[in-house]
Amino acid sequence: MIVVKVGGADGIDLAAFARDVAALTANGQRMVVVHGGSAETNRVAEALGRPPRFVTSPSGMTSRYTDRETLEVFEMVYCGKVNKGLGEHMQRLGVNALGLSGLDGGLLRGRRKATVRSVEDGRTIVLHGDHTGTVDVVNTALLETLLQAGYLPVVSPPALSHDGVAINVDGDRAAAAIATSLGADTLLLLSNVPGLLRDLADESSVVEGFAGDELDEYARYASGRMRMKLLGAAEAVLGGVQRVILGDARTADCVTSALAGAGTVITGPVA
Amino acid sequence: MIVVKVGGADGIDLAAFARDVAALTANGQRMVVVHGGSAETNRVAEALGRPPRFVTSPSGMTSRYTDRETLEVFEMVYCGKVNKGLGEHMQRLGVNALGLSGLDGGLLRGRRKATVRSVEDGRTIVLHGDHTGTVDVVNTALLETLLQAGYLPVVSPPALSHDGVAINVDGDRAAAAIATSLGADTLLLLSNVPGLLRDLADESSVVEGFAGDELDEYARYASGRMRMKLLGAAEAVLGGVQRVILGDARTADCVTSALAGAGTVITGPVA
Repeated sequence: MIVVKVGGADGIDLAAFARDVAALTANGQRMVVVHGGSAETNRVAEALGRPPRFVTSPSGMTSRYTDRETLEVFEMVYCGKVNKGLGEHMQRLGVNALGLSGLDGGLLRGRRKATVRSVEDGRTIVLHGDHTGTVDVVNTALLETLLQAGYLPVVSPPALSHDGVAINVDGDRAAAAIATSLGADTLLLLSNVPGLLRDLADESSVVEGFAGDELDEYARYASGRMRMKLLGAAEAVLGGVQRVILGDARTADCVTSALAGAGTVITGPVA
Repeated sequence: MIVVKVGGADGIDLAAFARDVAALTANGQRMVVVHGGSAETNRVAEALGRPPRFVTSPSGMTSRYTDRETLEVFEMVYCGKVNKGLGEHMQRLGVNALGLSGLDGGLLRGRRKATVRSVEDGRTIVLHGDHTGTVDVVNTALLETLLQAGYLPVVSPPALSHDGVAINVDGDRAAAAIATSLGADTLLLLSNVPGLLRDLADESSVVEGFAGDELDEYARYASGRMRMKLLGAAEAVLGGVQRVILGDARTADCVTSALAGAGTVITGPVA
């Protein structure tokens, strides 16, 4: 079993991704897919007159500030356009994709953090009404029921808080939680970079690989979104996933390539 | 087993609908929900600079002309905002809702009609590239798997064509197809009218009920959307559903009221 997170940045071709998934599943590969949608969400939010607002926490993590109206735009793009578009690509290729958000059947549950601190111009401000949080429970039984019945689950944020409110959660970390819950051997985090880069300006500077217990050492190369990916990788390795691969989603055979080891391969402790 | 279609016109409160569903399911009522989203789709389409275009067929049926871009807006609102919003309301009330479009797991499959004729200003014109069609196969096994596992399926168009293309389908007729496929005893079609009206201007002129084989006789009262509802009712009765009730979705206890017989009750032939 593998869990594949495909990012939502520009330059990622979901039709090509679907073709690669179709080739792999035709060969018997069992899989759960998690997807992003950030670039399209930004475009739709701008078009609707609600430009996105990003907050940077005092610890340096960047996330989307998500009030109720932003959540609705987020759901429209992630759960509507992207999830159904990706599912349609897969169905056309004979993959029995079934799209779900974390809300559906309580697939992804977690803690809401309604108040966030944001560092802006060197000052820390407090924002209320945020619909963000962190996944801490996966409805593994639902995924297993669907997998056993022959469906390929295609999962999108948001998740459901423990008191029943939709919360935006990080897709990479959600994929890590799913990989852990299913006992997956491999987690692929595919995005618009070829892996963890020693030098952000040089795509040939990919860190080839390291052991999970060396994560802290390599974290110094990460900034922005990559910090969240390393956090997800750490959670997956801690959860028993044997390999986490940070790979490039911009190539036609991105899943096959990453499975073959292209990108940054983080290996978990062998049990 | 009942199948409930709740419309997407203005004046329908999905939070109240969810409360009524929660009360009924807590008492053991098994149910599948199908929802609309037309008013919100029109608003979002306008805001995105793609105003909706409706076509009237030579036989007088009105439907949304759905090119690829319109389909994407439709998916954003139906499968994103409305489906996830309704699911969130239900989850908060302890109903284990699970949202699906007709694409997911090939839940609703049908024939695409890519070319439509539209009567405009008395002339019939031909439009190409339409993503609309009619459901002819329901993945009953998927619904039964989910129901048996304790989930309440919340279903939205679009459906999947037999060659794997997303197609906009009428929600009332999709609900009829689902009710037939599940052997439901009752189909509720709840919208922003109290039932079939003898006089459109008089909401007290509701036709109380008639037998399925009298449908042709009562069809003369129907215009616009109501014609599609009667077509759905006819298909459900023909499919073995014992009662189809055209009820008012604008009241707080709309499902309970309709089940008690408020609205227009069309009874199928008793087997």
